Amino acid sequence: MSKQQPPKILSGFRDYLPEDAILRAKIIQDVRQVFEKFGFSPLETPALEYADVILGKYGNEGEKLLYRFLDHGQRDISLRYDLTVPLARVVAMYPNLPKPFKRYQIAPVWRADKPQQGRFREFYQCDIDIVGSESALSDAECVLIDAEVLKSFGFSDFEIRINNRQLLDDFLSQFKLSGDQLRQIFQSLDKLAKIGQDQVEQEIITVTSAKVSKEIMNFISIKGTNDQILKKLRELFKNKKIQSRGLTNLTEVVGILKKSKIDPKNYQIDLSICRGLDYYTGIVFETIITDHKEIGSVMSGGRYDNLVGMFAGEEIPAVGISLGLDRIFSLIQQNEKEKLLTTTQVLVTVLDEKYMDKYLDISQILRAKKIKTEIYLGQNTSLKKQLKYADKLKISYVIIAGSNEFDQNKVLLKKLKTGDQKTVSIEKIYSEIL
Amino acid sequence: MSKQQPPKILSGFRDYLPEDAILRAKIIQDVRQVFEKFGFSPLETPALEYADVILGKYGNEGEKLLYRFLDHGQRDISLRYDLTVPLARVVAMYPNLPKPFKRYQIAPVWRADKPQQGRFREFYQCDIDIVGSESALSDAECVLIDAEVLKSFGFSDFEIRINNRQLLDDFLSQFKLSGDQLRQIFQSLDKLAKIGQDQVEQEIITVTSAKVSKEIMNFISIKGTNDQILKKLRELFKNKKIQSRGLTNLTEVVGILKKSKIDPKNYQIDLSICRGLDYYTGIVFETIITDHKEIGSVMSGGRYDNLVGMFAGEEIPAVGISLGLDRIFSLIQQNEKEKLLTTTQVLVTVLDEKYMDKYLDISQILRAKKIKTEIYLGQNTSLKKQLKYADKLKISYVIIAGSNEFDQNKVLLKKLKTGDQKTVSIEKIYSEIL
Repeated sequence: MSKQQPPKILSGFRDYLPEDAILRAKIIQDVRQVFEKFGFSPLETPALEYADVILGKYGNEGEKLLYRFLDHGQRDISLRYDLTVPLARVVAMYPNLPKPFKRYQIAPVWRADKPQQGRFREFYQCDIDIVGSESALSDAECVLIDAEVLKSFGFSDFEIRINNRQLLDDFLSQFKLSGDQLRQIFQSLDKLAKIGQDQVEQEIITVTSAKVSKEIMNFISIKGTNDQILKKLRELFKNKKIQSRGLTNLTEVVGILKKSKIDPKNYQIDLSICRGLDYYTGIVFETIITDHKEIGSVMSGGRYDNLVGMFAGEEIPAVGISLGLDRIFSLIQQNEKEKLLTTTQVLVTVLDEKYMDKYLDISQILRAKKIKTEIYLGQNTSLKKQLKYADKLKISYVIIAGSNEFDQNKVLLKKLKTGDQKTVSIEKIYSEIL
Repeated sequence: MSKQQPPKILSGFRDYLPEDAILRAKIIQDVRQVFEKFGFSPLETPALEYADVILGKYGNEGEKLLYRFLDHGQRDISLRYDLTVPLARVVAMYPNLPKPFKRYQIAPVWRADKPQQGRFREFYQCDIDIVGSESALSDAECVLIDAEVLKSFGFSDFEIRINNRQLLDDFLSQFKLSGDQLRQIFQSLDKLAKIGQDQVEQEIITVTSAKVSKEIMNFISIKGTNDQILKKLRELFKNKKIQSRGLTNLTEVVGILKKSKIDPKNYQIDLSICRGLDYYTGIVFETIITDHKEIGSVMSGGRYDNLVGMFAGEEIPAVGISLGLDRIFSLIQQNEKEKLLTTTQVLVTVLDEKYMDKYLDISQILRAKKIKTEIYLGQNTSLKKQLKYADKLKISYVIIAGSNEFDQNKVLLKKLKTGDQKTVSIEKIYSEIL
């Protein structure tokens, strides 16, 4: 047969072969369990949306990354960019959803970003959101879930960085800046990790003045324990006679977190965080794995009290947080003791096709006991080759049986790792394996 | 706030709210378990592929339905149409995958078909495939898995219809038809369920002759038990002096199925089945739920020994079967006793914010016991309204506690369905709920 096409995969996209897909499925299952333990229910939305639904939420830079095209009916459509905007659409379309509406969604999103180490064009987001509550308790719950998810992966050294966007807004109110100036300041601040403090300061100078820029840089650099930072902020705002809802919220959230069992080392106020997306209005989160700062934030999110209203025509508060599965995948992989190459636990070899009914029988008995059992499917294959197959896939057990064994209603059960083997009756295979 | 956009969803696409998404997640989990019990491992491939990869596999009618467009780099790309072609690409790209390669994939596919009852533009396929074996045992395994999946959903009255495409090829060899004529005959036969026997016969007459068309219609109408049909075929082919690999295969598959524990009423040779897709080469499957023939085939598939070779340049045999999740979803839903509106089992009400540490504590204790626990997240909400929320979502238990209860280290535990309530110590809530 002639080779028609060389097989290709798009840049920025990946196949996950079983050795990776098995672990990914396990991770998703773990995340789902944490989300459900906190009382979040699943929601599914389409991969494709009207472009109208998606536009105007992510800023210009974001919109450039949309996979947007005309469908067969000349409708302007786009693959989803995240799971938050589709959620907002759903909440608006179904006004009778009981609130607070707590949903999770674990699904791929698509962004035509420049592919690089740890950044892909198709990646999974695992989101929880709470719609219909503006309580600090819902903000705090995002932090608690963040910590619980990371702990379920075996991480203990991580820092959830918390800020409230209103804080800087409130602080900036003294300078009487225009909406446009404010937007540009936030855009510059969002690049802090990428371009560094000096360059951000320079950018802000071009928008405002050296004095204002300096004050902003000093403000976002306030350091200390959570309590120390809150104290400094209280004094600062008191001196400037500024009322700050952002400060009230942050104080409440930290108060709730203190009452919970979350380890204080795992959350830290960081006034430099603002998150790029246009739609955030209050608290914002980022999460850094202490020994792996290079991969950036693994869980991020925040409050977006106006987004649902853009669809619903009434303001509906919302807050949420999102795990970037693909970013953290390789870290989790490093912690795994052994890479599974298959889900199969037992291979039933076919020694003599005459006994096919027996092989089928044994497989069925084991499967009924929830043991993942594979009957060797190749044709006319030597036992040696069948064992090699089991070996390659690191299958734990192999069953070998022909007339000698079946005459006594028994099989040979071999543990591949150790080479141990013994003859056991068909009814007892199950108990030998567990 | 002014209403920016009326919220819309694309026709042929759906949101699954929690009440449906919870059940869908459970179904997917059940399917996954059956697949893994048979020794299949997960594989993930991207939603987007080079159009080159996808074109030339589904026939003209199929290709019209592709969501195909140019990306930012002017690459000709398409959303996947099924999970089989991406699998073939993967097998070709990773020649060292141990074979037989047994993988499952559960994921959405996209076809810009005319939306109608039970037919959507985005729908989930749950596929298993065996690559690298041409044994009748792998064909038979598809049937066994098909039956096991349907039984896991609680169905017992279903019929897996089996045919082998080569049979008709072999039968037609006596008429010396051209490749083009054969293709048109198969296309007509594939419309049998839609347009009926008479019209198919007429179509085939225009391609061949009245005599040939009559013989074909007689052939595909051979009826009887599996053994009777095989016997008739043996006689027919013997008389015509035709060697038929298709007949050999079908005889072997039925032989294996007889040796397995599958109920004979659940599989039936049906010579009229040919499946539309261009790539099938041997056995083909369709599955009808007896009392719901109107929804069409719920699991379908077959052998495609040339598809992988189109990418790999060497022939690699393969066979598989696919469950159409969305088509069967509403049937499964009808069998469910009670529709879950949330995954939450316990709502911890907030009676007095002063006791937030206690509410957080209780939630954490229950979650550690894997009880899905929600702390009420609304702000300044009356207990009455919190109970109404629990009622709306049909949450099983509610915990109510203020100073009276906490002074004794106890809470009030209320079972909403019955109205029963009792005072229990915090440590014992867990055992009351299980």
